[in-house]
Formats: sequence, structure tokens, C-alpha cells
Amino acid sequence: SVRVNGFVCKNPMEVNADNFFKAAALDKPRVTNKVGSNVTLINVMQIAGLNTLGISIARIDYAPLGQNPPHTHPRATEILTVLEGTLYVGFVTSNQPAPNRNKFLSKVLNKGDVFVFPAGLIHFQFNPNPHKPAIAIAALSSQNPGAITIANAVFGSDPQISDDVLAKAFQVEKNTIDWLQAQFWENNHN
Amino acid sequence: SVRVNGFVCKNPMEVNADNFFKAAALDKPRVTNKVGSNVTLINVMQIAGLNTLGISIARIDYAPLGQNPPHTHPRATEILTVLEGTLYVGFVTSNQPAPNRNKFLSKVLNKGDVFVFPAGLIHFQFNPNPHKPAIAIAALSSQNPGAITIANAVFGSDPQISDDVLAKAFQVEKNTIDWLQAQFWENNHN
Amino acid sequence: SVRVNGFVCKNPMEVNADNFFKAAALDKPRVTNKVGSNVTLINVMQIAGLNTLGISIARIDYAPLGQNPPHTHPRATEILTVLEGTLYVGFVTSNQPAPNRNKFLSKVLNKGDVFVFPAGLIHFQFNPNPHKPAIAIAALSSQNPGAITIANAVFGSDPQISDDVLAKAFQVEKNTIDWLQAQFWENNHN
Amino acid sequence: SVRVNGFVCKNPMEVNADNFFKAAALDKPRVTNKVGSNVTLINVMQIAGLNTLGISIARIDYAPLGQNPPHTHPRATEILTVLEGTLYVGFVTSNQPAPNRNKFLSKVLNKGDVFVFPAGLIHFQFNPNPHKPAIAIAALSSQNPGAITIANAVFGSDPQISDDVLAKAFQVEKNTIDWLQAQFWENNHN
Amino acid sequence: SVRVNGFVCKNPMEVNADNFFKAAALDKPRVTNKVGSNVTLINVMQIAGLNTLGISIARIDYAPLGQNPPHTHPRATEILTVLEGTLYVGFVTSNQPAPNRNKFLSKVLNKGDVFVFPAGLIHFQFNPNPHKPAIAIAALSSQNPGAITIANAVFGSDPQISDDVLAKAFQVEKNTIDWLQAQFWENNHN
Amino acid sequence: SVRVNGFVCKNPMEVNADNFFKAAALDKPRVTNKVGSNVTLINVMQIAGLNTLGISIARIDYAPLGQNPPHTHPRATEILTVLEGTLYVGFVTSNQPAPNRNKFLSKVLNKGDVFVFPAGLIHFQFNPNPHKPAIAIAALSSQNPGAITIANAVFGSDPQISDDVLAKAFQVEKNTIDWLQAQFWENNHN
Repeated sequence: SVRVNGFVCKNPMEVNADNFFKAAALDKPRVTNKVGSNVTLINVMQIAGLNTLGISIARIDYAPLGQNPPHTHPRATEILTVLEGTLYVGFVTSNQPAPNRNKFLSKVLNKGDVFVFPAGLIHFQFNPNPHKPAIAIAALSSQNPGAITIANAVFGSDPQISDDVLAKAFQVEKNTIDWLQAQFWENNHN
Repeated sequence: SVRVNGFVCKNPMEVNADNFFKAAALDKPRVTNKVGSNVTLINVMQIAGLNTLGISIARIDYAPLGQNPPHTHPRATEILTVLEGTLYVGFVTSNQPAPNRNKFLSKVLNKGDVFVFPAGLIHFQFNPNPHKPAIAIAALSSQNPGAITIANAVFGSDPQISDDVLAKAFQVEKNTIDWLQAQFWENNHN
Repeated sequence: SVRVNGFVCKNPMEVNADNFFKAAALDKPRVTNKVGSNVTLINVMQIAGLNTLGISIARIDYAPLGQNPPHTHPRATEILTVLEGTLYVGFVTSNQPAPNRNKFLSKVLNKGDVFVFPAGLIHFQFNPNPHKPAIAIAALSSQNPGAITIANAVFGSDPQISDDVLAKAFQVEKNTIDWLQAQFWENNHN
Repeated sequence: SVRVNGFVCKNPMEVNADNFFKAAALDKPRVTNKVGSNVTLINVMQIAGLNTLGISIARIDYAPLGQNPPHTHPRATEILTVLEGTLYVGFVTSNQPAPNRNKFLSKVLNKGDVFVFPAGLIHFQFNPNPHKPAIAIAALSSQNPGAITIANAVFGSDPQISDDVLAKAFQVEKNTIDWLQAQFWENNHN
Repeated sequence: SVRVNGFVCKNPMEVNADNFFKAAALDKPRVTNKVGSNVTLINVMQIAGLNTLGISIARIDYAPLGQNPPHTHPRATEILTVLEGTLYVGFVTSNQPAPNRNKFLSKVLNKGDVFVFPAGLIHFQFNPNPHKPAIAIAALSSQNPGAITIANAVFGSDPQISDDVLAKAFQVEKNTIDWLQAQFWENNHN
Repeated sequence: SVRVNGFVCKNPMEVNADNFFKAAALDKPRVTNKVGSNVTLINVMQIAGLNTLGISIARIDYAPLGQNPPHTHPRATEILTVLEGTLYVGFVTSNQPAPNRNKFLSKVLNKGDVFVFPAGLIHFQFNPNPHKPAIAIAALSSQNPGAITIANAVFGSDPQISDDVLAKAFQVEKNTIDWLQAQFWENNHN
């Protein structure tokens, strides 16, 4: 079989609508993880017809006080709209010359609002409501945007990064790093 | 002021979260047009911070039996999920060698389903329910995807295309073309 | 064998000039179709060495009063020069905000003139001369630009698009759609 | 005025068909230069509407025994078809590992034949007929492909490259370099 | 003056070699910061002629036991070679499905070795030698790659990210976050 | 095995740090060729993990009075810094309209200086010191930039380009061409 970009490129005679479709149940609530969120991403792994087409879509569930913790998408910009509830969102700019270095830009989003997280920047969404869940639909400018949850990648990698390196990088004692590395860093991207 | 890609590129010191935000009210129903739809697109015209970032998002409202009529996006692929109701959707492949020429791929989408319309292909969405509206969220792989509604561009251009050309192209009498050109070709993209 | 982009990528030791060549006979007139044109496209299907290189070339023949009917190239801009005869050409802009919506830009081209059809926009060429054929050379900014003849894709797809959808989209009676769908939508791209 | 890519981006209300048109007279023979050729390139400098669209077109005239001497296009692949006469064409591959190093691939092209010169490789066209001119139409995959005539850039630059450098690079005596640098290196790209 | 990509695009008549040059003193040791490193990046801000050209270069100094702490480049891949000393380097893959999730790939590099850090992934370099500095040359695949030092962006942003958000994200007490936010997060990119 | 871009794309479970590493010994001097240079390029052929990542790195050795002779990279810009010695470097602009045609921009580089050679332009580096070698590190904006040494490609191709063509192109006698073609055109890219 012919492959393009690592994915099967079907013979045109065998292509059908199901190659561009996924019964993704994005209308259904998801069980959220330990930090209170769940990202259901529909990318080229779920819809083979997305291959070479540069886009994907996700539903994000937030438990009350839940968050999609600080993370980056190494290959995509994200645009998000709130379906239910309220979200406190933000991103941090890169190491630009002062006074623009690591500026934190944040916003409270209500239902129907739209926000953009530029490609590669660290960002998060937090549901400030202690009683109600929140839901968002997000789209990403890649068929395979990738996600790097900062805490998971730094403290939950396999194998672990040396605590010598991390203690100095984060200006804490080694036992703080060891404690962090001992946590269960549950992924919220499914 | 410095411009990139034709849009103002703000001094980093003056950038703030509002440059990446739009109170777009995508949770609110829209008034649909004559063919029964309304596309509320949030692109770089609405959120200047989208400049160079390659994505946009839209809410689409469909009246009962309404449709987002056959159209193309000259610069983007579209991925869509149904928020409310049911949609009958489809696209037509290009002039490939037979038997793959102008194949029509279609699917009935229910709430939570996801479908992809590849860049540049003619596609539509139709709400087959005579009683209930439908709603979708769509994302497009460009900050300015463009939309070309086929009927509007062919029969409703300003000035009109010669009816000699169109009569032969569509294999109909000139008076059929004249009748088509006399319609009010209302845009559904706002 | 190694493939890049779905096409065989030959071992450099086996590459020869014929992989970059086609005896395409672009100097020879072609038989035109029902609407009076023929496009002889030399793309990556004809010259494997074009793979990844982003360009293709075509000869277009126009019968007297013939036309290359309204169509789009989903992945390419076209630049055209007239070799013989006269052409009336035009394209329609996308659904921009009024008063720029669906503007029709047209021009009469004589021998030696050059015209550009921007990527993805609906365009056509028409030979207004009732006695003489016309010839053009066109180049496209893709190794596989694709072509979507509007009438063929909308009314001649396989299977057909529902006449309910098309009647409403084109604001005509269903029997007009049925009549259109009953035509023989002959392709002019070979 | 707004500029994109260094070129004026017109207000849509002021755009007209002439922005996509050039009365380029590509049907008319050109006076050829000292080495017997003339390239009439229609790029974004001649047609402002080509901006961002990634293509250009050229007519090339060859005197009897004339040539478009070894050159590269730093930003484009070229596809060429012969309108009149015969051309002996070729290109040289890059410094790949032996035995593929600097392979010369050549072909004799007759009227209607098509040939591809991959981006950035040194190539030429030569009219072997001592009595008749030849004509080609070429298209390039950039709005501003650039052209570097090897002899002109190496021996006719302003100021001249040191003859110490060139004598060693070309393994000849300095006076051979001086002789070469004393030639009139006439450009054939207009 | 004409600008491309936000940077001045000089009139060709005024361009000279200095527009492509920087007396960057990359042979000279730099004073390292609190975590023991210094990155001297030569990008389009230092050499205007790099505009649109997609590359930049850096010298990195590492104090004994110093590190270039975990960071990402949102718009570039990095390739690095060691000039002096030894480096322990690594990167963490993204949130892929287990068992590939957040894999940590590391290597000890000696003088003359080369290593690649793929675009957007969290990576670091550490000088394990307690007595001798180390030096590397790195190149990045963007004229303006950006750098996001994880600790600085997460704990040293201006204004600070809410400690409610960060405590939950990092599974620590708020006072640990407050302590982290009270550190002086010195930048090592100059 | 899955291939992307012609290269094996490993199963993520089998990827390890060595796929991003090369013990390239870039700290070690190389034996220079007949014109006094040696380019040790580390590209995707040496480090498979560079696939799709758009960058490569090289060490260049220059003998006393040695040069990296006039050449182009068909797919990359080069940025270079001097590690040892002094280099006289330059590039020639393309066939722009006079008075900007084939301008030669040159500079003497000392240790630590940085210079940029724009993509596709003819450039060289020369070590003017008759007693000491020079060393540079260069980076290129492609995983496989290619190199075309002008003299080798023009006079040392296999098979040879016709001396009729070259004599006219370079405005010399055929026997000068024959003499040039009889040289041993040794490659300096390894």
C-alpha cells in the first residue's frame, strides 16, 4: 500500500466517506483526570482522511475547579470556544528582551467567547467554578499537533531526568524534585 | 506601525490578552438566510492575534431543512462537529480519471460526530429535519480561509458573467441562466 | 522501492533524463469536448521527476465559441498565455464583505497576453470567435493542481447530490435540477 | 498603503482585472544576446496580482546555435515546452556521493515536448540548428524565481571576485581568469 | 521603507555585506547566569539579512556543573556540536500513547559530537564536570526561533500565574509555588 | 517499515537517543582537497532523526591559502562562524536589473564573526593566510541542503557537457574548455 507522511494513502477507488468521519461522541461528557480535565482529540490517528490537511479538533471537559494544566503544542496553534461554563485561560510569551520577557496574558472566558493560544507557547485553561463543570471545543492547526504537559514531561518522564539537573533548574532542594517525581503524572490527553 | 502579512504587528509592549480574544457569542443562535443557514466565522479580521497562525473557527446555524449550500474554501481544510441536530453532509472529489471522477462522498452526522472537508473541494451541509434547527462548530486551517458559495459566485457575481458563457457551461437555455442571475443571492457568511 | 509523497523515489543511480521528460505533443491540436475545449495537463502523473517540485504545465485548445467552463484548481494558481486566437477570461472573488463580494474580473486576451487566476477561485476562458479556434499554454503552481469543473461536480457527480439540496441551493425547481443532472457532463481535462 | 511581501496589497475595492494582466507580447520574437538567447520573464514585477501566488511564466528565444547558458534559479523549479525548433537541454545533479556525483542528464527536445529542471540545479538550453531559431515557453514555481547565469555571476560580478580565488577554484592560470573577467557578460534575462 | 515580515527590506542598491555580517565574538567566553549558562544567539535581530532565510546560530557557555535548563524553541529544531568539554543532554517526547509517553532520551556528548533536539520538545544541556566549563555551537531552523525556559515561564512570568492553578498542576502545596515564584528567574538567553 | 520523506520513520517504541546523535568528531582536523578545503556535513544521511526537521551542520577545514570554491546550496541558506583563523568570504547576487546585477558582496571574517549566505546564491570562503589553516562551523536550513560546486558541475560532470555549449557560454576557445574538462574535479564535500 502507498503511504504519504507515514499514513496509508488509499487507492481513490476505495476511498469512502467513512475515511473522513469519526463517530467521536464529542457531545458526551468525559471522565476527568486527577487535575480535573480531559482532552478528546480527533486527529489523523482517528480520521485517516486528515492526512496532509493540517487541522484537528478536540472536546475538552473541565471538572469544577479542574484545569487543563500548563502545556504546549509543539506543532500547532489552538483556537478555543467555550460551550459550557467559564474558563480562566492564559499563555506566557517567550524569553523576549525585557520588559516583554515571559509576559503572562490571561482572560476569563464565558460561553461563546473565543481565544487563541499561539503555536508552541505554554498555556492552560482553568475552570474557576467550584460547582459546575465546563466544556470547550478547541481546534489545532496540525493533523498531529502533539501535546506536552509541562509537569508530566519534566517530572514524570520515563526514565526520570536527573534530580541534580532539575533541582538546579527549578532552584529547589533535591528532595522537592524527588517528591515531584514520585507523584503520579496522569495524562489528560486521550 | 509595522505590518506583517498586511495586518498590524503590534509592539510587544502593547500586546495584551484582548488581541487574542473575541466575545463572539458563538453560543447564541443566529438568524439564518434564505437557504437556511448562517456561518459566523472568527478569523484574523476579528482576532488580530491570529495573524500568521493558520487557523479560524466558526459556528454554523441551520434552520429546519436549511443548508450551507455547495461552496469551497480556497485556502483551507474544514473539520466540523455537530452540536445540535442532524446534518447530511458531503463533498465531491475533483476531475480525476474515471471511475474516480467527481465522486460524491456523503454521510449523515449526529450530535458529537466529526467530519472533514478537504481543502478546495465543493461541499455542503444540509439539515434534513423539517422541525428542528441544527448547530455545528467548524474549524478551518487558515487565518483567512475564504468561502466561495458556488451559486452566488457563478450566478450572482458583480458584474454578471455573460449568459452566453454560462448557458453553454451549464447546458441550459439562456433564459434559465437569466432567471438564475435574477435571483437574490444572499450570502450566509458573516 | 522508496516512495516520497506517494510516488516512487528512484535510486539516484537509476535516474535518467527521461524521468524529467514527456513527449507530450503540446504542439498538436486536440479534439475538444461538448463545451468546446480540451486541457492537456502534464503533471506528476506524466513526469515522475516533478515529484515535490510544485509545478505543472498544460496546453488548452478552444473550439470556435468553445470554452473551458467555470472551474477551480483546489491546490494551484494558474498563469496563462495565449498562443493563438482571442480569449475572454475571468474569475470571481470570494464571499468578501460587500461591496467586494463575488466581484467578477474579466479581460479579453490577445495573442501574447498573460493573465493570472489566483488559487482556488472560480474562473473560465471563452473563445469568442465563431470561426477560429484558440490555443493557450497555462502553468499551475502544483505538481498535481486538481481541477473541479463546477457544473460537472455539482450536477454530474457519482452518485448524484440530492435534488432537494440542489434545488434549494440554486433556487430552482427540482425538475430543473433533474434536467441538469440528466445531462452528459463530459470532462475536458485529460 | 498596505504591503505584503514587500509589494503593495491593494484595497479590494480598487482591484481590477488589469492587476492580473500583462500585455506581454509573448507571441513576438525578441532580439537575442551575445550567446544567442533572450528570456522574457513575466513575474510579480510585471503583474502585481501574482504576489504570494508562487508562479511566473517566460518566453525564451534562441538564435540559431544560440543558448540560454548554464544558470540556476535559486527559488524555483522550471518546466519548459518547445514552441518552435529543437533544443538540446540538460542539467547537472549536485555533489552527491559517487557514482551519482554531478551526473549530467540531457535530452533533445522537439516541438511539443516537455522537460523539467529541478529547483536550484545548473541547467541550460541550446539550439543545435545553425539555420533556424527556436522558441520555448517556460514556467517557474515562484513569483520571483531569480536567475543566476553562472559565467556572469562568477566572472562578471561587480566588483570582480579576486583572480587568486578564481584561478585556484577553476584550476587555471590567473591570466585566463583575467581574460574571462574582461569579457562583456551580457545578461539575457529581461 | 519597505518591510517584509516586519523587518526592513532594503533597496537592493543599498544592500552591502555588512547586512549579512555580525562581529559576534562567538570565540569569546561569556559570563554565565545563576544556573550556569549563557546563550549568545545571532538571529534576525542581529543580522537583518537573515530575514526570510530560516536559520540562526548560537554559542552556548556552560559553567562547571552549569546547565542550559529545560526549555523549548516554539519555532525551531536545534542541532548542536560540542566545542569544549562534555555535556549531558536530553529531551522528552510529547504525550504520546503509552508506553511511548514522555520518554526521556539522553546522551553524554564529547567534543565533536552532534545532537539534535526536535522542534518544540523540552530539552536541556548540563555540564557534568565540576571543574571545567563547556562550550557548544548550536544552530536553529528559524530566523527567530524563540526560547521558553520552562521554570521562568511557569514560575517567573509577569504577572505571576495564580498559585491555585500552579499548585494543582504541579501537585504541590501553594507555599511551594509561592516559594518558587519568589525566586529570581534569570534569563540565560541574550 | 514506515517511511516518511524517503527515510525510515521508526516505531516510537524503538526510537532512542542514538537516532538523534552522531559521534561526528567535528573537533578533529580533516585532510583538505586539491583546492584546500574539506566540508564535513552532518545531515539526515548521518542522523536519521533529522528527518523533516529542516537543519544540518558542518565543520569546514581550510588549508593555508585553501578555499571552499564557488558553490551553491540548492535547498538551503548557510550561516557560518569562524572557529580558527581568518576567512575572506563572499556571495554574488542574482541577475537583477542593473545596477544591482551580479553584485559581489564580500567580507573578511575573523574568529567569532558570523556571516550569512542566502539560499541558492553562489558563494565561497577563502583562507588568505599562507601559513595557518582556518576552521569554520556552518549550519544549513535543510536536512539535505545539497551542494553544487560550480567548477565541478560545469566542467567535471559525468558525462561531460558538450564543449560547443560551454565554449560559447564562457566565451572561450573549445580547447580551453577541453583543458578544464580534463582536470580532476575533486569534491570537497564528504
